[in-house]
Amino acid sequence: MRAFGSGRLSSDPLRRRLRRPSPHQRREEAVAFIKRFHEEMALPDEALVTRLRDVRRDLSRHGFYRHTPDELAFGARIAWRNHANCIGRLHWKALEVFDCRSIRNADDIAVQLLQHLRSADANGRIRSQISIFAPVEGDDTPPWIESAQLVRYAGYSDGQGGLQGDPANVELTRTAMQMGWVPPVSRSDFDILPLIIRDKEGRRNLYELPDGSVREVDITHPSIAGLADLKLKWYAVPVVCDMILTIGGIDYPCAPFNGYYMGTEIASRNLLDLPRYNLMDRAADALAVNRADPLYKDRVSTELNHAVLCSFARDNVTITDHHQESDHFIQFIHREKAAGRMPSANWSWIVPPEASATCPVFHQPMQDYHDVPNFYRSSASDGAMLGVSYATEDLNRFQRRFQRVRRRFRSWVRSKS
Amino acid sequence: MRAFGSGRLSSDPLRRRLRRPSPHQRREEAVAFIKRFHEEMALPDEALVTRLRDVRRDLSRHGFYRHTPDELAFGARIAWRNHANCIGRLHWKALEVFDCRSIRNADDIAVQLLQHLRSADANGRIRSQISIFAPVEGDDTPPWIESAQLVRYAGYSDGQGGLQGDPANVELTRTAMQMGWVPPVSRSDFDILPLIIRDKEGRRNLYELPDGSVREVDITHPSIAGLADLKLKWYAVPVVCDMILTIGGIDYPCAPFNGYYMGTEIASRNLLDLPRYNLMDRAADALAVNRADPLYKDRVSTELNHAVLCSFARDNVTITDHHQESDHFIQFIHREKAAGRMPSANWSWIVPPEASATCPVFHQPMQDYHDVPNFYRSSASDGAMLGVSYATEDLNRFQRRFQRVRRRFRSWVRSKS
Repeated sequence: MRAFGSGRLSSDPLRRRLRRPSPHQRREEAVAFIKRFHEEMALPDEALVTRLRDVRRDLSRHGFYRHTPDELAFGARIAWRNHANCIGRLHWKALEVFDCRSIRNADDIAVQLLQHLRSADANGRIRSQISIFAPVEGDDTPPWIESAQLVRYAGYSDGQGGLQGDPANVELTRTAMQMGWVPPVSRSDFDILPLIIRDKEGRRNLYELPDGSVREVDITHPSIAGLADLKLKWYAVPVVCDMILTIGGIDYPCAPFNGYYMGTEIASRNLLDLPRYNLMDRAADALAVNRADPLYKDRVSTELNHAVLCSFARDNVTITDHHQESDHFIQFIHREKAAGRMPSANWSWIVPPEASATCPVFHQPMQDYHDVPNFYRSSASDGAMLGVSYATEDLNRFQRRFQRVRRRFRSWVRSKS
Repeated sequence: MRAFGSGRLSSDPLRRRLRRPSPHQRREEAVAFIKRFHEEMALPDEALVTRLRDVRRDLSRHGFYRHTPDELAFGARIAWRNHANCIGRLHWKALEVFDCRSIRNADDIAVQLLQHLRSADANGRIRSQISIFAPVEGDDTPPWIESAQLVRYAGYSDGQGGLQGDPANVELTRTAMQMGWVPPVSRSDFDILPLIIRDKEGRRNLYELPDGSVREVDITHPSIAGLADLKLKWYAVPVVCDMILTIGGIDYPCAPFNGYYMGTEIASRNLLDLPRYNLMDRAADALAVNRADPLYKDRVSTELNHAVLCSFARDNVTITDHHQESDHFIQFIHREKAAGRMPSANWSWIVPPEASATCPVFHQPMQDYHDVPNFYRSSASDGAMLGVSYATEDLNRFQRRFQRVRRRFRSWVRSKS
């Protein structure tokens, strides 16, 4: 991995994105989280009393407190479970959590990220993981990652409206080039950008990902040879870096995580979206779909999804399709309700962008309770709405009471028999 | 048209569905509507003053007022323009309005509805129309239509979970049969139900639609012959009967209207939805789509949409596809904004249920201002949210001021030249 010189910046974009809970709200979230942790982990009541006392004391003394490793791992999993936009939450318990809070140096963060990527890939059997670096404590902002994902393809703008690569990353590409990154001599649509990490002084640090560290899948169609001419590919592991993890009133702005892809994310959105690769017409021609057909976009979208799914399967890389994932999500909802919890869900994010009415989630009523712990991008867009949701809290309380009564009833039955 | 005996009912389902605005709110809506009417029709200021005085007087004396025929037509068009769930609003100005307020007898309503259907059909070149019957005035509830649409296909339940026809209409079918309607000797999936109209005493009246009054389109695929074996068809003109039209504080519970179909409504929803005809697997076999393919549902949905569009085109019956309608909707938004209005839109209703990300509406931010005039189904579901939206009102006020300044400036320029 090659590191570049770093540039100083006066503005603090991270601070602008952070939520600003009042001391009261922070204490409320901390207490609710600690209680939930002790309850779901079925820890003894004495431990809860002691821990709550310590957390309250730390909050009033310093304005923050530190999570134990177990709390951190639990918090990250609950944040995923609560995140209304994600369809793939059935296996939230399986999230692997790396406690990297002691790593506070940009170079070391970059090293850990490569380690994360290697371990997540697991020879194509992708594992869901999160690496959690230092939280915000008091006025200090810790290092954070400016790249939206660990792997991003460059977008080159010629300044006259012409574009090569991924239009979503034009700004990031410009920044990287200003910082000294030199694109390959012959530029392609899929040049991997260096990773940009801001250190705690706000300086940018660039790290080129070493050759061979990023697994990519060439996208071909199993029966339509023409698609190969477009030389499409996509990376195997989406590691999201630009979301802030908030647990019990404490924000972790550097908490990159990964799952695996659902085919539509690559085929229907990244490659076909108008403001992204916008390949509709070229893909139609390559797939021999007649563009005079009023439904040619539907056909291209389906074939490209088919190609992406088959290509990942060919390379033995984990991927899922929207039908399977939709079924899993319905299972997730049932399991959550069985556990006495109201799962948050955002219909416009959950419903797949292709053949949506054929997926059961389309017909599922959903509501977002904006509960914490959670992930958010920015206070202005989604962060400010987050807080302890009493809709779900009350349900938990009801469920606890019910379980207590059931326990007593059962022990009474046992005592009689 | 054959009319059946009518049955008396003690409950008043219509009254439960009606909004209950306070006298203050009703006056507010009335005044806002009359002002908007005079403004958009560019009527002289004196007329507005007189009309407002009369409306306020009628409201305080009787609790209601009567719309002039012009106000009624304008109000119905604005109700359509404001209705957030409808993608087809580009041509809202072209809505034809039939003022049927004097028709207060169930038999006469049935006759007018058949007339509406004939005139809407127009030999396949479908026209958007609304027939507006008597409003709610004081404690009297006028007649209303119990059928959700003018044309409904019977749904026969055998009481053991077995179903034939459209499951959405099982209840309506049962009611019709209890009232004396006799289904055809050999029942099919597409038996047209009689129309059920409640008179102002709440009694049900059944009217069988005469043979030949309902145009239907046989659904075949232009290149896959197998689909014809399923003997699918659908009616040409959707006349929605169960929505309440509210204009300036006055509710019209019997205001059936029609547009023309977008293909996905029939193919992706009515025929494929699990709680409707649920034809996915049978259609897959008929269309020779391999059900082992993980994306077979996407393929079936596209082919069935193709079949519906081609079948309507074959019979020269107006229909539109989701791509064209999505483009039209974006045009509608631009036009509304150019006129200084914020168009209401409900993303989950507007975005088509098939190839959604390929339609520009998928990427369009939307908001519902719940503005009146509007259509609603029931106070409990959507009616209670409706009211004068100051977000749009303020914009109108700003726009009026701007136009006034521009007029003065122009006349000043003219006076100088």
